[in-house]
Amino acid sequence: MPKSRTAAIVLAAGKGTRMKSRKPKVMHEIANRPMIGHVMAALKPLHCDPVVLVVAPGMEDVAEAAVSAQIAVQREQLGTGHAVMAARAALKSVSGDLLVLYGDTPFIATATLEAMLKRRRGTDDPAVVVLGFRPDEPGGYGRLVLGASGGLDAIVEARDATPEQRAIGLCNSGVMALDAERMLPLLKELRNDNAKGEYYLTDLVALARGRGWDCAVVEASVAELMGINSRADLAAAEQVYQDRARAAAMEGGVTLLEPGSVFFSHDTRLGQDVVIGPHVYFGPGVTVENEVEIKGFCHIEGARISAGARIGPFARLRPGAAIGPDVHIGNFVEVKNARLGPGAKANHLTYIGDAEIGGGTNIGAGTITVNYDGFCKSRTVIGPNVSIGSNSSLVAPVTIGAGAIVGAGSVITENVPADAMAIARGRQVNMTGRAQTFRAKRKKTKTTTKAKPAKKAGARSGAKRKSGK
Amino acid sequence: MPKSRTAAIVLAAGKGTRMKSRKPKVMHEIANRPMIGHVMAALKPLHCDPVVLVVAPGMEDVAEAAVSAQIAVQREQLGTGHAVMAARAALKSVSGDLLVLYGDTPFIATATLEAMLKRRRGTDDPAVVVLGFRPDEPGGYGRLVLGASGGLDAIVEARDATPEQRAIGLCNSGVMALDAERMLPLLKELRNDNAKGEYYLTDLVALARGRGWDCAVVEASVAELMGINSRADLAAAEQVYQDRARAAAMEGGVTLLEPGSVFFSHDTRLGQDVVIGPHVYFGPGVTVENEVEIKGFCHIEGARISAGARIGPFARLRPGAAIGPDVHIGNFVEVKNARLGPGAKANHLTYIGDAEIGGGTNIGAGTITVNYDGFCKSRTVIGPNVSIGSNSSLVAPVTIGAGAIVGAGSVITENVPADAMAIARGRQVNMTGRAQTFRAKRKKTKTTTKAKPAKKAGARSGAKRKSGK
Amino acid sequence: MPKSRTAAIVLAAGKGTRMKSRKPKVMHEIANRPMIGHVMAALKPLHCDPVVLVVAPGMEDVAEAAVSAQIAVQREQLGTGHAVMAARAALKSVSGDLLVLYGDTPFIATATLEAMLKRRRGTDDPAVVVLGFRPDEPGGYGRLVLGASGGLDAIVEARDATPEQRAIGLCNSGVMALDAERMLPLLKELRNDNAKGEYYLTDLVALARGRGWDCAVVEASVAELMGINSRADLAAAEQVYQDRARAAAMEGGVTLLEPGSVFFSHDTRLGQDVVIGPHVYFGPGVTVENEVEIKGFCHIEGARISAGARIGPFARLRPGAAIGPDVHIGNFVEVKNARLGPGAKANHLTYIGDAEIGGGTNIGAGTITVNYDGFCKSRTVIGPNVSIGSNSSLVAPVTIGAGAIVGAGSVITENVPADAMAIARGRQVNMTGRAQTFRAKRKKTKTTTKAKPAKKAGARSGAKRKSGK
Repeated sequence: MPKSRTAAIVLAAGKGTRMKSRKPKVMHEIANRPMIGHVMAALKPLHCDPVVLVVAPGMEDVAEAAVSAQIAVQREQLGTGHAVMAARAALKSVSGDLLVLYGDTPFIATATLEAMLKRRRGTDDPAVVVLGFRPDEPGGYGRLVLGASGGLDAIVEARDATPEQRAIGLCNSGVMALDAERMLPLLKELRNDNAKGEYYLTDLVALARGRGWDCAVVEASVAELMGINSRADLAAAEQVYQDRARAAAMEGGVTLLEPGSVFFSHDTRLGQDVVIGPHVYFGPGVTVENEVEIKGFCHIEGARISAGARIGPFARLRPGAAIGPDVHIGNFVEVKNARLGPGAKANHLTYIGDAEIGGGTNIGAGTITVNYDGFCKSRTVIGPNVSIGSNSSLVAPVTIGAGAIVGAGSVITENVPADAMAIARGRQVNMTGRAQTFRAKRKKTKTTTKAKPAKKAGARSGAKRKSGK
Repeated sequence: MPKSRTAAIVLAAGKGTRMKSRKPKVMHEIANRPMIGHVMAALKPLHCDPVVLVVAPGMEDVAEAAVSAQIAVQREQLGTGHAVMAARAALKSVSGDLLVLYGDTPFIATATLEAMLKRRRGTDDPAVVVLGFRPDEPGGYGRLVLGASGGLDAIVEARDATPEQRAIGLCNSGVMALDAERMLPLLKELRNDNAKGEYYLTDLVALARGRGWDCAVVEASVAELMGINSRADLAAAEQVYQDRARAAAMEGGVTLLEPGSVFFSHDTRLGQDVVIGPHVYFGPGVTVENEVEIKGFCHIEGARISAGARIGPFARLRPGAAIGPDVHIGNFVEVKNARLGPGAKANHLTYIGDAEIGGGTNIGAGTITVNYDGFCKSRTVIGPNVSIGSNSSLVAPVTIGAGAIVGAGSVITENVPADAMAIARGRQVNMTGRAQTFRAKRKKTKTTTKAKPAKKAGARSGAKRKSGK
Repeated sequence: MPKSRTAAIVLAAGKGTRMKSRKPKVMHEIANRPMIGHVMAALKPLHCDPVVLVVAPGMEDVAEAAVSAQIAVQREQLGTGHAVMAARAALKSVSGDLLVLYGDTPFIATATLEAMLKRRRGTDDPAVVVLGFRPDEPGGYGRLVLGASGGLDAIVEARDATPEQRAIGLCNSGVMALDAERMLPLLKELRNDNAKGEYYLTDLVALARGRGWDCAVVEASVAELMGINSRADLAAAEQVYQDRARAAAMEGGVTLLEPGSVFFSHDTRLGQDVVIGPHVYFGPGVTVENEVEIKGFCHIEGARISAGARIGPFARLRPGAAIGPDVHIGNFVEVKNARLGPGAKANHLTYIGDAEIGGGTNIGAGTITVNYDGFCKSRTVIGPNVSIGSNSSLVAPVTIGAGAIVGAGSVITENVPADAMAIARGRQVNMTGRAQTFRAKRKKTKTTTKAKPAKKAGARSGAKRKSGK
């Protein structure tokens, strides 16, 4: 379809009072993407130009989640028709088709929009194509009344419907494709002489029919038209999304031990024969290659995990974690902005941040890369086949050469040459019988001791050991 | 309603054999409160006096969970009527209304009890008000037979019911409001000439009707009358409670990414625009202010979290954790009995116990407050804008002044003055080529080495370094 | 029943294309046991001999999960009849009964197989006993047509069935008990002149009936005959298994706060009055004694937990963890191949590997047993009533005697005698005002610093402290 012919407008000015939030409704997230982002993603393959986003005053930062859209501000909330009028300036040059979408209906599918545009360009040249759906309980929805030829005769509001009309299951979703040239000029004929005093876009159908123009209907599933008005709706939509993502993952050859306990982001990518244990969270930007095992209780975002790696349980991978093939990341280990070479291991109680770690290197339990001195972040570079002893601190910037060994409990502040052994710790002193004496004393004074205020100590005071002197 | 007129008795002596537990049935918990505590909480707004709790011998410690109640011990389990008789001494002075409740029916609502009392004081002055409900499968429940005027004519046990009576959906919950003055004297007329040889409180209705006194029914929902007889029942009740708590949280403006994975306690308080990730547990006594983010995998109890704080993932807050505004508590961090000032950060692998931490202070990864010397607990006091280097140990009691810096890997045993820098660690020694030598040796002896028994070392033996000498 | 009379054959050669896996379908796990292992476990009490497992070429390692089985390789996949023919050599000496099972139907129950064998040996001596079931949607399943006497007249494929036959709810599961002597010789009469060109074992029924032999049906529940063809099927089967395991645990006197969030292995054993919080994972080989509390977020495998112990939250117990009575294992603690005596405690951020820890000993926060030097694993032995200071490293092999005290932050490389106090750490130096100077400097250069390559340092260079000199 020719790019230049289609524009889109997304109505996103709704306050979402029931959300009870300072955040605009359409900025609440599903699968770690704002609702409005889902709508923009559905639109993207259609290359609409312009895409106009109608927001309320103060909601301009919605634009961050919809970078390719123009923003139009609707000063007052006077109905859907009024919202489109608020975007008139931005729509001035539009002469082809115009899609009308809603920011709080995030599951609309690209294929559905394509079907609507195709229908709009059908041989009967309908001026309006309305997206219909069949909710379990039609209740208050407007009913779509079809003519003998299958075209859309009218949209009847529930309160105005005859009993026969109320029995119609096909309802109005509000989503439309308009022939902009014919329909935009009619906006000014919309009237607000109704109970709420609002301008309804829906009334365009009656205006078109009044001129003898055809209107048409395309149908979509109920799931696609889930609207979000409360946090409970948001949670329900999230569940729909997650269940789909879980099914898709399994379909693609991923084992989920407890599918219901795994949370995916909208952009999680998983290879084949990946096995994921219970209680795993994927934030945005994660790619997992084939035959990776992710044990339970992992929290992963912005990370790339190469084939054959084993992660967790209780691992946290943060943005910039690049986990090489066959790497092991174990329990209570955090990796941030760091690259681990093939077969490297960090199995226990470790923080690796702003680092480069060579293949085959073993990071002992309790190791910390000291990447922050309170002001600057610095990098730690560790060569291949290095052994970092447990409970070590690597004070960045620091480089540890290939094949080096760092003794347990060391505080490494200077570079370590390749194949060298580095130790940086105190000497051990055993004081015979002192534990006995200490215990005897402590048993007398078993109370909680308060800390005393720090006195102004002299410069370079060699503080005495509390015990062992 | 006048306080002095209403008493309550809670039957809690049931052994709960199907629970297979050494713990009394009513002490099993829902939302981290014993069942009996839920019943006591429902009673509390009614200011009943006395509240008598009937327990079996050996269950006296139930009183801990029902502090405002008098305890009556029922020596043998001979039916609900017998249970009330066991409490006669405690009820001697009661002349107004008497509510009869059950310790294993924890969801009874205050409003329902109020409705029963209101009905008891109706113009027809019923001697007994029975709480009815309509279970999906009435099965073995006693049926409530109503008279033409809507009053309660009789309670018919299922096994004695005619087919028409069995078709009645309204069943006896056992919960009652009695006119104590008229009904308590009738207790002695209850008989145990039935299959189980028990005294049934239910028979009071027949005794009252026999004297020509009116009886009445109030209805409650099935959910309110869930009874707990097994751990499966307990889990089902917990789920009902949790689902309500989740819905209420969302209704109040809280986002739950996966509602079903968040566990609340009976007293969890949450502000608006709080966002809670998957897999979060709230123990008792937690208050969370507005716009706090709690990422996945957190375990929080007895903590107060101020506005704007960011918690987790993998954080544990224990009783006495007072998290100031905009504080960050990160992964694998435990906070207990400690106060953190505004904007303080403890992002990784840290234990903060019995401490006071000033605003703007940064606690490096792997820091431990050494609050326990095996006998006494001591406090750590850290001023504002301090930087504690990674992998440090702060041996309490100790005070670190405002603006001080502690070097990574330090063991701090003495106070640090404000704006001072403190270091307490060994010097680094690099031994060129030693890693190579070590590796060569190790490759020959790649076996598991057993620890040798500690020899009796001499006093103050300066133990030699294993390597690096 | 006489052992020698019954053989079994398990068809496991299916490729499981829809699993999208490099692993054979029957090796995918439910409750941490391969599907084929579940089938083998159901067979075990029947003492069948031989048990023949029919696999496809390249699947021979299935034998690891089915150690007591003989393996027969089916070169091509030409139907169930062909699969049994592929095992003819192994079945040569079989003259009694032959059970035919499927490796991807893991929930078949021993009792069902016993019922089939009992039926096979009924007085009417049926040549074939077919296991029937009643799926919700019989759809494409073969229907079991019964005769007037209740015997099996025929199996009619869905596509060949008359409308009356299609209305039959009783379907063919494929599981059979055969009189080997009569039926094995008929295998060669099976024909593949059907749409798929396969040999169907099902056709044996027609061959038997053709000879005037009786056939019979035994019925089983739908759940027992769940077949696994995709990862979604696998997840559904896992859920069925887990729900049963959860119900059984509760029935046995275990409290599960959120049953749906607890994952059991096929061999998890739990005592009475065990309380398990939300989000707990049991890997294989776990035994938990009475009155143990396991808080949320624990990952436990291969561990024995004695009565009264308290585990978690956020604890990981790995194979060989032997947790003594009343031991406390706290948050972010990992225990592997280690024994902890009665009342020992390791409450925070600790790694205990390859160790023996005496009763009453306290392991301070952040303690690491340094059990691996990059080549060998060594053991740490700690006596009773020892106090290990926080952030200590215990470099194995090392022994710490009874009642000893290790100072916080120590690196212990030599044995510590009983009742001695050991310290191994640097001295503290406070440099007045240095934090101020440092901050001033840093504020100017607030940039990310890169690590420089390690230069070739001289032997034993005493590296200078970055600060504090």
